[in-house]
Formats: sequence, structure tokens, C-alpha cells
Amino acid sequence: VELTIPGGFRLAGVHCGIKRNATKRDLTVIVGDSALSAAGVFTTSRVCAAPVKCNRRRLPSDRIRGLVTNSGVSNACTGPQGDRDAERMCALLAQHLGCGPDQVLVCSTGVIGRLLPMDKVSAGIAAAYAELSNSSTALDNAAVGILTTDTRPKVSGRTIFLDGRTVRITGLAKGAAMIGPNMATMLAFIMTDATATPSLLESVLRAAVDQSFHCVSVEGHTSTNDSVILMASGSSGAAAGGAGDSTFANAVCEVCQDLARAIADDAEGASHLVTIDVVGCRSDADARQVARTVANSPLVKTAIYGADPNWGRIISAAGYAGIEFSETDLSLRINGTLLYDRGTPTEFDPTFESARIRESRDTHVELVFTLGSGKCRFWTCDLTQEYVRFNADYTT
Amino acid sequence: VELTIPGGFRLAGVHCGIKRNATKRDLTVIVGDSALSAAGVFTTSRVCAAPVKCNRRRLPSDRIRGLVTNSGVSNACTGPQGDRDAERMCALLAQHLGCGPDQVLVCSTGVIGRLLPMDKVSAGIAAAYAELSNSSTALDNAAVGILTTDTRPKVSGRTIFLDGRTVRITGLAKGAAMIGPNMATMLAFIMTDATATPSLLESVLRAAVDQSFHCVSVEGHTSTNDSVILMASGSSGAAAGGAGDSTFANAVCEVCQDLARAIADDAEGASHLVTIDVVGCRSDADARQVARTVANSPLVKTAIYGADPNWGRIISAAGYAGIEFSETDLSLRINGTLLYDRGTPTEFDPTFESARIRESRDTHVELVFTLGSGKCRFWTCDLTQEYVRFNADYTT
Repeated sequence: VELTIPGGFRLAGVHCGIKRNATKRDLTVIVGDSALSAAGVFTTSRVCAAPVKCNRRRLPSDRIRGLVTNSGVSNACTGPQGDRDAERMCALLAQHLGCGPDQVLVCSTGVIGRLLPMDKVSAGIAAAYAELSNSSTALDNAAVGILTTDTRPKVSGRTIFLDGRTVRITGLAKGAAMIGPNMATMLAFIMTDATATPSLLESVLRAAVDQSFHCVSVEGHTSTNDSVILMASGSSGAAAGGAGDSTFANAVCEVCQDLARAIADDAEGASHLVTIDVVGCRSDADARQVARTVANSPLVKTAIYGADPNWGRIISAAGYAGIEFSETDLSLRINGTLLYDRGTPTEFDPTFESARIRESRDTHVELVFTLGSGKCRFWTCDLTQEYVRFNADYTT
Repeated sequence: VELTIPGGFRLAGVHCGIKRNATKRDLTVIVGDSALSAAGVFTTSRVCAAPVKCNRRRLPSDRIRGLVTNSGVSNACTGPQGDRDAERMCALLAQHLGCGPDQVLVCSTGVIGRLLPMDKVSAGIAAAYAELSNSSTALDNAAVGILTTDTRPKVSGRTIFLDGRTVRITGLAKGAAMIGPNMATMLAFIMTDATATPSLLESVLRAAVDQSFHCVSVEGHTSTNDSVILMASGSSGAAAGGAGDSTFANAVCEVCQDLARAIADDAEGASHLVTIDVVGCRSDADARQVARTVANSPLVKTAIYGADPNWGRIISAAGYAGIEFSETDLSLRINGTLLYDRGTPTEFDPTFESARIRESRDTHVELVFTLGSGKCRFWTCDLTQEYVRFNADYTT
């Protein structure tokens, strides 16, 4: 099924020259045909990029007209000039739209600490504005324009029936590295043609992020630019969030989970997508804490890269996750095989289990506690020599 | 200066067959000529090895007679049989010493989840007992017998004057990987011929660990077996810890710091020893939190491996460390060069800075805050392709 752009939105993605390679798009614009309702969730880092500060001042809002985002330079740690550049990006798009700069959102992703080439950005915004469209090509170009070291665009969508009408939810995201969950990670933009107040969007988005982008990690390094933005045009005429109706919220959550999983799967150098299910904890928060600790252990991640069913690394990571338990409360399965049974190792065939890990891109890790009903599903990737090679030589 | 064993101790390190390679020593015994005063600090992991549970029951104590430790198998996650095996190791050495099993300490390090080959361990304890000596060769053999993937033994010592007498403090340690500080990491045994009560040893050791093993990280994965044990024979006749005299405590701290730094320097695959100084925080705990977060970031560690002065990764790691600050509170130096000055990037020559990182095994990272006088010195290593290769194929 080909994804379509929800009604009331037009998109474009162009190459403006921030990235040296002229075939790589590096600037994306999303606009609403009329005022959009919008909410966002942002990085919890104390060091946040200039565009994040900008958006925090503007959201939630019911009068957003557009969003401009560039890749290649993150505009983080850039001092007062960085703040001025982020505001200027808003003002440039606002000029084309005939609205106030405070009705435009701005995002950036890329290298930290470099100033934006504002002449190129300015020309890029003009070029993108001229190309705006609701075609599937425009969606593809916009999804590509926000990528950095990602190898492929990440888009996902759902069509739901609401108020007797068809409502679309379509999202795009970028990931690759510096992915550590802390309320919001990376860039993701989700559009819908449902009608929704900013406060409804905010609560739907927070719940969705909690079960998606908050449950994904590449190496646990929370970025300065993490932003997830949900925008509603209302062009379908169908109202989201009628009393007790979770159709809209569930669909937004599913789109976010698709994008989060795609980010883990396309992480720098990844050769395995690892899904970690933790169940039977005292609370969902405890389960997430265990899942995140396991997901961020380089020893766990290198073992999966090497197809080594070295389960002791997973159990020991759970041990230092900071939740209370005894070894006899815990069992472990890898790809369905029980390797550790309430505190005692099982007999298993390591050659067979190793082959199963090697032969599939997906690895499933299940940690089963006997303490309650708290659970979490978390996505990460393995740690490969390619990740190290790639990240050893990024800016120089 | 050749290190010597403090008076009142005899050591041995032998090959008993836990490691397949017959040239690799895998069992170390330390005994006191008479009863030893001893204290220990152990892993905070909820999944702790059988020997750790054993030692926790025994320490602090003023009637310890010896310590037996093996490498190759960690005796962690081994269920009730593992507990019996740890107790049996104590009983076997106790038989030779003619004391109770509760007067013997036991440590293990190696692969998690495998049972010890107790026939080999038993023969090894007998062989080691027959070889006990206070020669420098015995110290070397004992230091080698506790290693796993370490490439070299780690020993350090100090000679101090106390009570008008000469007092020796000598320590040995093993590190290599699964090193994440959490009150105590890895194995380290420190011997002294000072006279000291168990409670004095405990307080001296806790303070020393706080500034040494608690400030070192390879990949942040806290192990199931972390144990640091300080033993005093009293054979010098000099009493440690007279009122207001910190000579003994300082010397123990220095030995622990030497060993901690040696662990970071000899980490699996490491090509750089990274010293992180964080100063100007509201508290020492805040400074340590920042240092540890920077030290555990794979993005920071791969950048140093690649000699990439990609300072944005360091600043962004500080950003998610969980302490309150503004960007204008923070400056950063790498190898003495100011790269980030109270929230704003400086002009610097990346080629020159890259060459400086590449040409030295030591990298110095300084994070300077303007918030108070809290500080921390922390040691870690870079993350190399060799680390990944090595850890991708450990058990299979």
C-alpha cells in the first residue's frame, strides 16, 4: 500500500547544499493549507539545540502554518548565533506563507557545534516552497530530506474510520545514531487530517512516544535535537478523541512504533534488530528500566552481533538495572529457547542457538520476572565493527 | 622499584585446568601467616556471584586466614550448585590451613553461567598451597592467576612510614571488560602489614574505592563478581589510622587509583586511556555523574578511537547526565585545547587536534562548570573495532 499525505498538508524535500553531495536532499518543508493544531515532545537533555528551544516556545498551538527542517548541521551548541539562525529559518518560511514567524516550527539534525550556512538554507526554503505538493513523490522527498547517516527513509501510516469518515495518519522519522530514549528521541513528524485540539494532540502524542520512541535505543546517547511533532489539519472533518474512543490514539501509537522500530533496524552498522520483551515486573517503569539497561549494554550488543548466546551478559545487565529482585525471580528466553530458568542455567545447544541468531536479522530477547504484571517492549540493534568504524571518523 | 609482598602474607598462582591453555595460570591463593583483619566492597548488582554472597557473610572480620580465587569461570548465575561450590572452595583451602571454612574468602571471575570443574579446582588449591611463598615471583604468579582477557598483570604498591616503622601496601587487580563502576568493580586484593581493625579497614577501603574503582569504566556493564578486598596482617607492628593521620588511607587510595587506571588502560581492545576531569559542579556526586555519562557514551569513545575531536558528543553526553545546568555554565578542553567556551564553540584546528589525539595513548578531557567546587577524576578507554570483534565471539 502506497502511503499518502493526509489532507490539508503539502510537503517538499530539496538539496540546498548543507550536505556536500549534490544528490542528497538536506532540507524539508511541511506546510498546512490552513492553520494546524500541533503538539511536540522534545529531548530532556540540558544541552538542547536552538530549534528545540524555538519549538518549545511555540507548542502546543492551534495556529501553526508550517515546519522547516534541515539535515547535516544540528544547530546545537552554537551559542547566540545559533538561536538567531533558528529564528531566521522560521521567518524565511513565514515570509512565503504570509504568517508570523511564531507560526512556523523548525528542526535540525546533523553535526553538533557548526553554524548553519544561512544563504544556502534561505535558497533551500524558497526552492522547497516552490515544490510543495501532496504527491507521494513529495512525501518520499520530504522523508529523505531529514536523513543524516540513515540508509533509508522511514515512513509509516494508518487509515482509520472516525466519525463515519476516513482519517489518515502519516509519519516520517530519522534515526541512525545518538539514539537514547528520554521522553523523545530523534526527529519524527506525524501528520493527520483529523480535527483535534492541541491539548488532545499533546496527550495522544505523549502516550504514543512513551510506548515507541521512548522504547528504542541505538547506543543510549540522548541527542540534543530529539523532537517528535504531531500536526492535525482537520481537513477530513472527523474529530479525534471522542469520549472513550481510542481509535485515533491507537493509530498514532502504531505509527510511532513502526517508526521507532525502523530506527533501530536502520541504526548505523546494525546487523540485527533486537526486540526485548520484559514482563512480570512490579511496574511498567521497572520493566522499561530493565529493558533499557539490557539494550544499552555493549556486551549484550556485541554478543548478538557475534551470534553468541552468551545469556550471562543479559542476566547480569538486568542485575544492575536498579530494580529489586532475586535471581530465582528471573527467567530468560532468546528466540524462544529457555536459557535461564528461575535462577538456574538450562542445558541447551549453543551451536544451534548461535546459528539461529546468525541466520535471522531479528533477535527476540524475553526476560520473564515473577513479580507482577509490569511489562515493556523495547527495540535496539547490535553493536558491530561497522558502527565503530563509522563513528570513529565522523567530523574529521 | 620491584614490588614486594607485605609481611605476614604468602601467595601462589597456578594452572589447574579451568583455562584450556596449560600455560595460563587460573587459580590464586593468598594466605596470612596468622589471622588477618579484612574488609571488602562488593558489586551492587542484584545478580551477584556465589563467591560474593559467601564473602558478604564473612566480612568484615579479624580472623580471616586466606583467600582463594579462580579465573575462567565466574560461578555467577549457577544456582544452588554454585553456592555449594563456592563454600567447597573455602573448605578445601581451610583444610590445608587448619581453620574453619568461614575463615576463608573466595572469588571467581570469568564466563557467567558455567559450573566450576571442582576436581580441577581442588587439585589446584593443593598445588597452590604447596607453592606459597613471599617471593616476588609468587606475587607475579598470583597477579597472573586472577586474569581473564587482561593482557598484563596489574600490581601497585606503596611503602609508608607509620609509627616509626616501615609499612607496605601492595595490591593486585584484574579488569579487561564488564567494568562499570557501582561502588566496587572487578577483582582487587590489597594487602598490608599494618595493624588495623576490620572497621578501620572498611572505612579506609570505602573511601579509596570511591575515588578509584568507582571512577573507572570500560563499557559501563557492572559485573556480577566485583570485589575489592583489603587485608591487614599487622606484622609490621605499626598501627594504621592514628587520630588525624591519613598516611595509611592516602596510600591505600593511591594503590587503588593505580590499579583502576591500569584496568582502563588494559581494557579489551583499548587504544587510548582517557582521563576525564570534571570540575566546578555543585557536588562531587554531580561531577561523577557527568564523568560517568561521558565515559560510557559509545559515541564519545568511538570518536577518541578515531582521533576525532568531535566535542559535540562530549557536551551532549553532559547534557543528558541528569544534572541541572545551562550551556553557558560549561566549557570543554581536550588535551588542553579549549573547544567550547561557556556555551559557544571556539575556533580551532581540527587536523592539529586530531593528530594530538592520534599520537598519544593518553587523552585528557576536561569539563569545566561554573556551578561550585564539586569535582571528579574518572578513567575510561576508547571503543575500538577490536573490542567489538573480541566480544562478538566469547563463549561460542
